[in-house]
This record gives sequence, C-alpha cells and structure tokens, in this order.
Amino acid sequence: MQLSFQNDRVLAVVAHPDDAELLCAGTLARARPDGAVIAICVLCRGDKGQPSKKVANLTDLRRKEMAASAKLVGAELFTGDFPDGTLMDTPRARSKVIEIYRKFNPTLVLAHAAEDYHPDHRAASLIAEAASWFCASRGHRTRSPAIQTPPALWWMDTVNMSGFNPGFYVDISQHVGLKKKMLACHQSQLARGNDTDFSPLEEMMRLQYRARGMQAGVEAAEAFRAHFAFKRGRAW
Amino acid sequence: MQLSFQNDRVLAVVAHPDDAELLCAGTLARARPDGAVIAICVLCRGDKGQPSKKVANLTDLRRKEMAASAKLVGAELFTGDFPDGTLMDTPRARSKVIEIYRKFNPTLVLAHAAEDYHPDHRAASLIAEAASWFCASRGHRTRSPAIQTPPALWWMDTVNMSGFNPGFYVDISQHVGLKKKMLACHQSQLARGNDTDFSPLEEMMRLQYRARGMQAGVEAAEAFRAHFAFKRGRAW
Amino acid sequence: MQLSFQNDRVLAVVAHPDDAELLCAGTLARARPDGAVIAICVLCRGDKGQPSKKVANLTDLRRKEMAASAKLVGAELFTGDFPDGTLMDTPRARSKVIEIYRKFNPTLVLAHAAEDYHPDHRAASLIAEAASWFCASRGHRTRSPAIQTPPALWWMDTVNMSGFNPGFYVDISQHVGLKKKMLACHQSQLARGNDTDFSPLEEMMRLQYRARGMQAGVEAAEAFRAHFAFKRGRAW
Amino acid sequence: MQLSFQNDRVLAVVAHPDDAELLCAGTLARARPDGAVIAICVLCRGDKGQPSKKVANLTDLRRKEMAASAKLVGAELFTGDFPDGTLMDTPRARSKVIEIYRKFNPTLVLAHAAEDYHPDHRAASLIAEAASWFCASRGHRTRSPAIQTPPALWWMDTVNMSGFNPGFYVDISQHVGLKKKMLACHQSQLARGNDTDFSPLEEMMRLQYRARGMQAGVEAAEAFRAHFAFKRGRAW
Amino acid sequence: MQLSFQNDRVLAVVAHPDDAELLCAGTLARARPDGAVIAICVLCRGDKGQPSKKVANLTDLRRKEMAASAKLVGAELFTGDFPDGTLMDTPRARSKVIEIYRKFNPTLVLAHAAEDYHPDHRAASLIAEAASWFCASRGHRTRSPAIQTPPALWWMDTVNMSGFNPGFYVDISQHVGLKKKMLACHQSQLARGNDTDFSPLEEMMRLQYRARGMQAGVEAAEAFRAHFAFKRGRAW
Amino acid sequence: MQLSFQNDRVLAVVAHPDDAELLCAGTLARARPDGAVIAICVLCRGDKGQPSKKVANLTDLRRKEMAASAKLVGAELFTGDFPDGTLMDTPRARSKVIEIYRKFNPTLVLAHAAEDYHPDHRAASLIAEAASWFCASRGHRTRSPAIQTPPALWWMDTVNMSGFNPGFYVDISQHVGLKKKMLACHQSQLARGNDTDFSPLEEMMRLQYRARGMQAGVEAAEAFRAHFAFKRGRAW
Repeated sequence: MQLSFQNDRVLAVVAHPDDAELLCAGTLARARPDGAVIAICVLCRGDKGQPSKKVANLTDLRRKEMAASAKLVGAELFTGDFPDGTLMDTPRARSKVIEIYRKFNPTLVLAHAAEDYHPDHRAASLIAEAASWFCASRGHRTRSPAIQTPPALWWMDTVNMSGFNPGFYVDISQHVGLKKKMLACHQSQLARGNDTDFSPLEEMMRLQYRARGMQAGVEAAEAFRAHFAFKRGRAW
Repeated sequence: MQLSFQNDRVLAVVAHPDDAELLCAGTLARARPDGAVIAICVLCRGDKGQPSKKVANLTDLRRKEMAASAKLVGAELFTGDFPDGTLMDTPRARSKVIEIYRKFNPTLVLAHAAEDYHPDHRAASLIAEAASWFCASRGHRTRSPAIQTPPALWWMDTVNMSGFNPGFYVDISQHVGLKKKMLACHQSQLARGNDTDFSPLEEMMRLQYRARGMQAGVEAAEAFRAHFAFKRGRAW
Repeated sequence: MQLSFQNDRVLAVVAHPDDAELLCAGTLARARPDGAVIAICVLCRGDKGQPSKKVANLTDLRRKEMAASAKLVGAELFTGDFPDGTLMDTPRARSKVIEIYRKFNPTLVLAHAAEDYHPDHRAASLIAEAASWFCASRGHRTRSPAIQTPPALWWMDTVNMSGFNPGFYVDISQHVGLKKKMLACHQSQLARGNDTDFSPLEEMMRLQYRARGMQAGVEAAEAFRAHFAFKRGRAW
Repeated sequence: MQLSFQNDRVLAVVAHPDDAELLCAGTLARARPDGAVIAICVLCRGDKGQPSKKVANLTDLRRKEMAASAKLVGAELFTGDFPDGTLMDTPRARSKVIEIYRKFNPTLVLAHAAEDYHPDHRAASLIAEAASWFCASRGHRTRSPAIQTPPALWWMDTVNMSGFNPGFYVDISQHVGLKKKMLACHQSQLARGNDTDFSPLEEMMRLQYRARGMQAGVEAAEAFRAHFAFKRGRAW
Repeated sequence: MQLSFQNDRVLAVVAHPDDAELLCAGTLARARPDGAVIAICVLCRGDKGQPSKKVANLTDLRRKEMAASAKLVGAELFTGDFPDGTLMDTPRARSKVIEIYRKFNPTLVLAHAAEDYHPDHRAASLIAEAASWFCASRGHRTRSPAIQTPPALWWMDTVNMSGFNPGFYVDISQHVGLKKKMLACHQSQLARGNDTDFSPLEEMMRLQYRARGMQAGVEAAEAFRAHFAFKRGRAW
Repeated sequence: MQLSFQNDRVLAVVAHPDDAELLCAGTLARARPDGAVIAICVLCRGDKGQPSKKVANLTDLRRKEMAASAKLVGAELFTGDFPDGTLMDTPRARSKVIEIYRKFNPTLVLAHAAEDYHPDHRAASLIAEAASWFCASRGHRTRSPAIQTPPALWWMDTVNMSGFNPGFYVDISQHVGLKKKMLACHQSQLARGNDTDFSPLEEMMRLQYRARGMQAGVEAAEAFRAHFAFKRGRAW
C-alpha cells in the first residue's frame, strides 16, 4: 500500500520551533514530491529555551532557525507568537489559528497528540482541533472568509513514543537526510544538548524514527493516528 | 490522501461464503483498478446455514455462489472446506492456510477482527494471523516453498460495527454497485432474510457502509485496523 | 430487561439548540410515560449557525425553535445563553449550571461525552460534570440552596458515533416519530442542509438511530455510557 | 433508574460450584421477584477443590451443595460435569451448553468475563459466548430444537475486581442475606478458608459487594458489562 | 519484589486537606523509614467543606488539622491557598506549584489521576503535571532557581476506585495505624459523616485499602500508575 | 525508587531459545546480585529456525546454545521440548509447566504478553498463566507436590515494542554487556541475520533496550506490565 498526498495541502501545527522536525518533517518531505503544498505553523516563540550560554535575542534567532528549516522542505511558515509555557486553549488562540487555517486552506492538519508530554503541546493539540472545526464555520469571523471543508486531522507521535498507540506509519526512509538537515537548523537548541535541563535531540530523533521504522518494516518511519470526529474523518 | 494498492496482492481470509461481501468487497473492488491482484479465501463451507425451505446440496450451492461472487470482482477463490461452527486454530488448519498463502503470495491479508461476533470468525482471525507469520518461515513445511516476506494484515470491521474502533477507512463510494451484486450472488442466504435465525443482509450491509461513510466524509466506506506485529507492520 | 425512569427527573444538558434532538430525544420521550419529569438545558444560543440565506434575529428564532421542541416532549427548558464557539469550563459557567440543577433537582443528567466532536460539546461535558458534584455541596453558593444528592450522569453518544463505545442502549423504537418532530422544529438549521458548512440533519439522525438499533436488536436506539464517579454512580 | 427482569429467563453460566454465589447470586435474587425465571449452569464438578481434611466423595458432595444453593434462590440447576482445570472451548463442550440453552431458553445469560483469573473461567466464558450464538442456529443440531432468538449476554465481575471495568451495577442491597446463605451451602469450600491454597470466601465476597456498592451509591452491588455482539446486544 | 524509596524525596500534591490521607498516606509512611524525605502540598484551603454545624474559622481550622496530620508522618507541609471549587490550570497556579517543587526538590510526585471524581482533583492533576516539567526549565522563572531533573510522577488511585486501572500497588499493611491517625486529625470533616452532602470517610478509606490489598495479596495497599512522559519516566 | 529482587526466585518462561535474551535477560542479570535465584524455561526446541546454511542437529545445537546463555546469567535451565510452531494451551502442556514451577518454586514468573507477535509466544503466555494458578492447587497432580503460593506474574515487552503499553521499566544499564553476551551464545540464529525469513537480532535488541531506556530516563531498560489476577497480584 502506498499513501499519496497528491492533492493535499498539509499543515503541521506544532508548539515549539523544533517540534515539526522531531515528529513530522519526514512526512512533510514525503508529501512534497507527491505534489502536496506544505506549511508549518509554530505556535510558541521558543523564548524560554535558553542554552546555558545565554543567547541575546533568542526569539529572533529561533524565528530565523525555523524559517531556515521550513525553507528546506519548501514549507510556508506561520507563527502564533505565543510565549513558551503559557499556551492555553482560549478564544483568542483559537481565532489566531482559525485565521491561519483560512489563509492556508489545509486539507490535512498534523497536530500534537493529547497524550504528549508538554503542556504547550497539549494546548496546541486542543487549539488545532478546535480550529479544524471552526475554520469552516461562517459564524466564526476572522479577517479571511470561512473555508469550504474542515481539514482532516492526524495526531502526531509523542516525543519518545511514550503512551502513543500508532494508527498507521508513514515511510520516511528516503527523507531522513532532509529531516536531519532541518533539525540542524536549530543550532540554539542543539547547543543545549549537554545542559541538565535538555536532551541530545539528534540521537533522540534518530532512535525514534528507527524504532518506528522497525515496527513498520522500513528503515525509518513516523507514526500517526487519525482523528475521527465529525467532518474531520476521511476515507482514503 | 489516497491509498493505492498498485503493487499489492490482496487476500481476504473470511469464515463464511458471504463474509467478504459484507466486510471488504468494496475494498477489493477498489484495489483491482489500481493494479492489485485479488483473492478470497473462504474457510468454512457454509453448510449449516440452511434456509427454512431446505436446499438439497447446500455445500455445493454455496460454493457456486461464492465462485460467482469472486468472479465479479476478478478474485481467485480459495476454500478451506471446514464445516461451519467448528473452526479452531489448530496446526492442521494453520497448514492449510499457510499453503494457500504460499500459493497466492499476498502482500496484504484482510482478516476478521478478534472482537467479531461469530466463533468461526474469531477462529479464522487466529488462523489468518498465525499463517501470516509461518508462511514465510522455511521451517514450516507445506507443499509449496516459503514465501519471502510475511504479508501485511488488516483487521476488518465487525458485522454491525459493535466494538470495533477503526484505524482508517477505505472509500468505496464508486464500488457500492459491485459490492451489492456480489452479495446478490448468495441467493441461498438472502432467502433466509425472514427466518427467525437470520437477518436481512442487504439492509444490514447498506446501513453499515453508509454509517462508516458518514464517519469518513464519503458516500460509502469500509473500516479497518492495521495489525502491527513483528514483520506484519507496514509504513505506507 | 427493561429500564424504568419512573421516579426520575431527567435533565439533558447540551451545547446547542438541536443537540438534544440528535442524541437523546428518544430517551426523554421514553422516560416521560414512565412517570419521569423531563428538562432540557441548552447552554449556547445557537447564534453562530447562520444559514446561507441569513436570518435576522437568529438568537430569538432559535430560542423559539427549542421552546417548541421542548414542549413537544413535555420538557421544561433552561438556557445558558452563552455565545456559540466560546463555551469554557469556568467558575461562572459552573455557577450558572449549578443553579439550573438546583432549580430542577435532577436524578439523572444526560451530557455530551468528552470524546464528542465540537469544542462546545466538550466544554459542556466538563461543566455538566462539575455541576453534578457542586450542586449538592452547601459550600458552593448560588441563589437556590444545595440539593440533597448529586444526580447520576450518563454520557451521550457522539454525533455520527465516532469514537464512542456504548455502555448500554435505550430502545426508542416507539418514539422515533416524536424525535423527528422535535428535530423538525429547528427549521433554521434544517434550512442549512445544503450549505457547504453544514449537514443534512434528518438523514444523519436516522442513520444513527438505525445503526444503534441494529447493534441492540431493535428498530431504533440511543446509546449511552454511565459516568461512574464518586456519588454519581448508581446501581439499578 | 430501575432495571426490571420481569419477562426474563436468566441463566448464570459459571465454571465452578460456588462462582455464581460470588459473582451474580444477588442479581438472580433480584430478578426472581420481578417475575423472572432463574437457572444456574455449573460447568465443572468442583472435583479438584479438596480441603486439607480430605472429603471422600467430593464430586457428589459439591453437587449436593450447589443443588441446595440453587434451591434457595429458586433456580433450576444444570451441570456440565467437566473435570476441574481442563475446561476448553471445544465443539463437544459447546454442544453440551447449546443443549442446556435450548432446554432452558434464556433471554439473558450471565457469564464469566474474559479477563477473569482462572483458566476454567475463561474457557467457560468462550463456551457461553459460542453457545449464545449457536443455540439459535438450526444448522447446529442437538437433542432439542434451536431456540428463536439468541439470548443477551452479560459479563460478570472478576473475582476480586481486578481488571474489570463495570458497564453498570445491579443493586443487591435487599438480597445480601440470600447471597450469604447461598454461599453458606458450600461448606466443603468454606472449610478450606485457612488452607494455604485457598481463601476466606465470605470476607472476599463481602468486601467485593461492599466496594461495588460504594461505587454505585448503595449498600451492596454486583457489577456487569454487556456483550454487544451481533444479535446478543439489547436495548433496554 | 520490594520497592525502596531510600534516596527519594516524595511530594504528594493533593487538592484538599484530607486527600493525602485517603489516597497516599500509607505510601508516605512506607517511604519514611526507607530514608525518604516527605512532603505534602495541599492546593486548596478546604474552605467550602462546612459541617452542618458551622465552624467559625474553617480555613484556619483545616490548616491546623492538616499540619497535625503532616507532622504525624514527618512531612513538610506546603499549601497553595486556593479557594475550593475553583482550582484551574492557569499560569499563576503553575508558578505557585513550580516554586514549591523548587523549594522541596522532589524525586517523586504523587498526584491525583485525571480520571478522579472532583473538578479540583482534575485541575490539581494538570497543575502537578505541568509543574513537573517546568520546575526543571530555567526559562520558567520563579523565586528559586530551576531544579536539575524533573521528578518522577505517579497518579494516585481515585476516591472509591472508580475507573482507575492500577499499574502497581504499594504494601501499606504496616502503616494502616498511622494512616488512620492522620485521617483522625481532620475532625472538621469527620464531623460531616452524617451530613447529606458528605460521606463516612473512615469506612470509605478502610474499604478501599482492604480492597486494594485483596487485589495485591496483602492486608492493605494503595494503588498507583506511573506517568510515562518525557523525562518523568523512571526505570527502577 | 529502586526495585529489589532480594528474596525472589525469578523464572522466565519463554517460547524459543533466544526469547529470554531479547526480552528479559537484563532483568535476570539485575535480580541476581540482589540475591535472587534465577531460572529460564524454554518451551520450544527451536527446531524450525534453520539458517539457510542448514545445521545438522539443530535441536541439539540450540539446546547447547541456551545452556551456555543460561550459565552466563547463573540461571537454572528448564525445557519444555515442544516442537516449534505448534505450541498450544493444552492440559498436557499445562502439566509440564506446572511441574517445572513446582520444581523451581518461583516467586515471580516473567512471561510473554498476550499481544506478542508469534503464535508460540501467545500460547506460552496462556500456559504460563494457567500454570501460575494450578501450581499451588493440590487438586492438580504432577510428580512434585503443590507449592504454597502462586507466583507473581509479569508480562514481558513484545518483540519490537508493538502494541505493548508498559506498566513499569527495569533499569538494566549495568547489565547490557551480559545481555549481549547471552544473545551471542545463539550463533545458529545470529547466522540467520541476512536470511530473508529472519532479522538482525543484535540491532533489534539494541534498538529496543535503548528506546525503552529513553522512555525511562536511563541508558537501557526492559519494560513489563504486572498481571493483576487473583493471588498473582503483589504489593511491593
């Protein structure tokens, strides 16, 4: 079986600047050559992830890093500009994301799973889900008009795979190189690899795509679960 | 997203002569024009499903009916020839099905879910799973040699959808006509629609593909869940 | 087995004006002749569900429609008067619903399941649950005094049945006519049946009560799951 | 809410002579005054449960004990006469139980849950389920003719409540005395209360009906979960 | 197997003054002699739990009661000082608890499960989880500096065990006396045992530790489930 | 927290000669220095796992390999001597394993999970569970007398981690070297690493203990879930 993203417009909605790299960059890279249009929406600034050797304008630097990474996979970049660690599912946050959906008009949204480890990830999950319904409702006014059809929604794997039961796997064996290059754009974070409050991201990412690959009979894979809710479910 | 079965060899392993029609005929019909090769393996004879107006050679008649139905979808037909109601996961039953796998060499097996309603369906589920592992093991001898790679395995929806949580849906909107025609081949069963020990099959089937369609945003759908076990998992 | 609502006071707590019709109207109709007292509490105004052919005073119209529907089943009507799309589980929302519980004194609350599709449904679920505890706590002051015992709480099916595992089914075969008439009161919504941001409600409702009926051996059924939390659990 | 067993014929299918007492005797006692007809089917002889002070004709004694207990609740007694510890879901075991169903014609079967602790309980669960389908199928021949409709099927709580998630609770507060008297019939087992390979049954039973009662707002309760499979599901 | 808390610093984070007693006091008592350092953090004041015979300075009294109880087990006491019934997972509540974590530096946090019965318990669960991540992140500023490593996190049993599937049990057979004495400190609550809006706490507590003990082969036990999320998972 | 196996007698019950190495060897190595007594019971001969370069007396060779491996960890070795691929939960298989339990008298059994990938693993799981009950029942006669208390039972991780939700993790960081040496004893299997019907075992094993370690904050871990069934549950 092969899954094609030919007519899709795929939008990854993540909490922090390097989350898309860890959890769905390979799938974005896979969708691109099928003919899909790609975008990444990063809700938080990444402003609280200071390396021990402090960076002066961290918010600016991280924006540049994510722009560089998005460019590598040919993705349009949207940002929510929320401060780290305080993301909540509020009417204001919903409106911001609804407007981003309306600008990009996704057919498929990739979002953090409710069981992920970080409070910002879980808030991003709720907001992405709420917006996936409201974006197509004319009663919910934002600058742009409502779109025709709510997008499909897939929950992404959790960081380190804890508690996530995959519904299906996307083969990213041919796209591991790009996934790594995208992660490499986030030098301000990779520099934290030895800080006590951080983790060696490259190894974590490699271990995860290899383990998911082992479960799915390929060199490397990313795992997802479809969200089957009214109008967001899709038959393939 | 669209799922292609282009290079697949799809084998439906079912318990009774009309189970493939109810649970996966639309998907077989979908896979065919993609270029897939199709087969149906019916493990039991259907010998205990007598209409109130008794049929003389019921086993023969049902074999003809399933052959007619398989022909409609262009599927090779395999039979296990087990009596109804006594199917068990035994070494002998496994060997029979291993040999069928080796003859057909499937890349994808569609099998009854463990949570289905009928003891024969649950036994068929166990046998189909066991064979999906052993068919590729040289230590397990049958007439034909071991195949190279265990097939992927998808669990089919349950009859009437009770207790089945879908992992994904296949759009069969364009293949409902064929699914209905295949069911119509089973006149010996449709004749039982008013018997106290039977059900009106056409309406049940229609209600199920419409309800699954409603959940997946299409006119008609069939639901499945992938079996992620060592070497049977696949990334798409 | 037959479930009797003889001494019950049943309160359906829903998010939008036509949710009770879709998910529990048949059960309300069933409880009535048993001797139960019935009420419906609609938390949101329905103010964002404009048909493409705009309605002038939509909030007023929908209030009239829900009043007409409630009257058909002999239910007292309570309203939360919250705007659509922004319902949240806040102390203020809880207080409003606590007071409604204290006015009506329910023995059984029917509420949206946590796994339902609409953010307002999920907020309504949280509020209904919180109120089911606080309504009986004297420390939580509202205009009316605390009631003696927290009500039982049942989660209703989701719209289109996605992700909902029923705990039990209520036979509504004798009450389908009334359920349909109640839905027919919501002409402002039925008018949206062909809008791109809406759905044909009658067909959806019919498909769901028929599918749930098929799973439960009757012509039509509604599905629920009991909430077993401290003091809200009940033995029958 | 109150559940009535007025027109029911309730058959408890258990593995060992004292299992019905522990897990469903209160419910049988509740159903009786509603007008239900009651039966207990014990599949194994109880021949391996020797007290340390050996009993000569243990099989005979246990049969007398279960007959005395069944009599107390007004239940007809059926026995499978299988030796303890070797019960398996075989065609022969199914036939025996199918015939028992056909003799009693139950509308509701109470059976061990698949997650219960004892291999015989789990085998009894499979057999009771298989028979609940085949009893109504004319193709499956036993001495008595097929019955009209498969019975509903409820899974009983596990011994000590481990791993069992209740779907609903039956209030047995008024029937605790009878439940205790029924258990007291099994003197050959109560005598084992201090043996290293046994347990103090009365205390276990009391702790369980009190804990289940606490969860359900009553003095004492028994917990069940309905089996929703084709034709065994019921709307109430 | 025996679990040792030798080098641990165990912090119970609960919603109300007597929750630690009901759900984890035995485990705190067990950890102490192993060499662990113990603390209890009570987030709400207990100000809404008035006995029918009103207490003048209830907040003060309950603080004294919890101090007395904490002293019995040798635990440091932290308080969140939030009013009952309005606890929410907000940035402010998180900051307060982050600072408490940083002061105490726990290696293990015991927190209410998401499936517990009381809205305050569920909010406390969210806050305890969020703080368990942020406490070790330097970007999240509070008065004290970030700690080195996020603590492990265990979810506690629910009050009355409803809906909680234990991951493991802690043997508290030797510590039941202390657990009871700790509960006995809360006289303002025990006095409510006969109020219609309250429960007999001692019996509830006893029934629960006995039932959990029965499931775990000991006289008395408390049940937990580990939270396996990034950096909060631990191998033993 | 640290788990001690000080007074334990740990018995791993596995299907094939190299399964203990993959799934629990690190835990056995951890238990040893605590003072535990260790044993491994291999139910099947490993007779069907022929490398492409055929081995003459494969059964003998594999027995030598497993003996060498068991010796490395100081484990007594028991064998079931069943042919590969046909293991079933029968009275005879149960008796064999009951007798092994009675000889070794385990306090803890490590067994394959029901959700593991191989039919022999699942049969071994059922047999190990059945024997864990019957070994302590005097009514079940084997050569040795019944033991006093049923052992605790832990389910082991699945091969490649598919579908297994860990209940807890054992830190094996200090024992990876021994785990690897034990696997290296199975040269007849490692030789199959490039066969089409086999897998590179060392890499698979490494990927799994590293991924489980990542989830549990250590270099390497093995994952388990306790079986909470009557008398097999334990409080720690």
